[in-house]
Amino acid sequence: MEPLKGKAVHYTEVEAQVVGEPAKNAKIRWLVDREHDNAPVYALRMIELEAGGYSPLHQHNWEHENFVVEGQGQLLIEDTWHDLYPGVVCFVPPNVLHQFKNTGDAPLKFLCGIPAGL
Amino acid sequence: MEPLKGKAVHYTEVEAQVVGEPAKNAKIRWLVDREHDNAPVYALRMIELEAGGYSPLHQHNWEHENFVVEGQGQLLIEDTWHDLYPGVVCFVPPNVLHQFKNTGDAPLKFLCGIPAGL
Repeated sequence: MEPLKGKAVHYTEVEAQVVGEPAKNAKIRWLVDREHDNAPVYALRMIELEAGGYSPLHQHNWEHENFVVEGQGQLLIEDTWHDLYPGVVCFVPPNVLHQFKNTGDAPLKFLCGIPAGL
Repeated sequence: MEPLKGKAVHYTEVEAQVVGEPAKNAKIRWLVDREHDNAPVYALRMIELEAGGYSPLHQHNWEHENFVVEGQGQLLIEDTWHDLYPGVVCFVPPNVLHQFKNTGDAPLKFLCGIPAGL
């Protein structure tokens, strides 16, 4: 295997892909991942929810680690809604119902790290 | 084992620990980790370098995934210096010499994710 290559790029240089239903007004940028970087352990993505946007209420058997970069919103973890604003860090454990939503007028942008290779 | 607990807190609510030499003017906050959260795959930390601060030129057999939150700086990966400013995402592969330094007057703050349990 070739040696892994380092990188340092602004996140807006990474393509934003539309996330379809059941999400709404949602885009994702795969900032660091196994496919492009051979990142061995986890993938770092930027999720962008436009005004009115949300992720579905859902669960899966891996965790999220999040950091809010811009905007205002809320995150449901099980039965509790948490306020999201720049600088908030979140841990969503595996197998727990959760949902992100934008509650403001501007985009809500947050990092979302998950195990690599899913 | 108890079920894992979710959380959503502002990063400044997490204690900043001084990083000693050979780093300079450096602090770290362990935002999500195995010790406190049972995060299974990776740990998310906030590194804060005050003016004049830097990490040592070093390498290790795990990778970094970074995101710059505040400030100005540079990151050396092997033989190339990369500019750091808010929104820059970095991948530092395992076993590669690297160094972060603050080149501005304000703190340089960046997220740094590493495999859990190191």
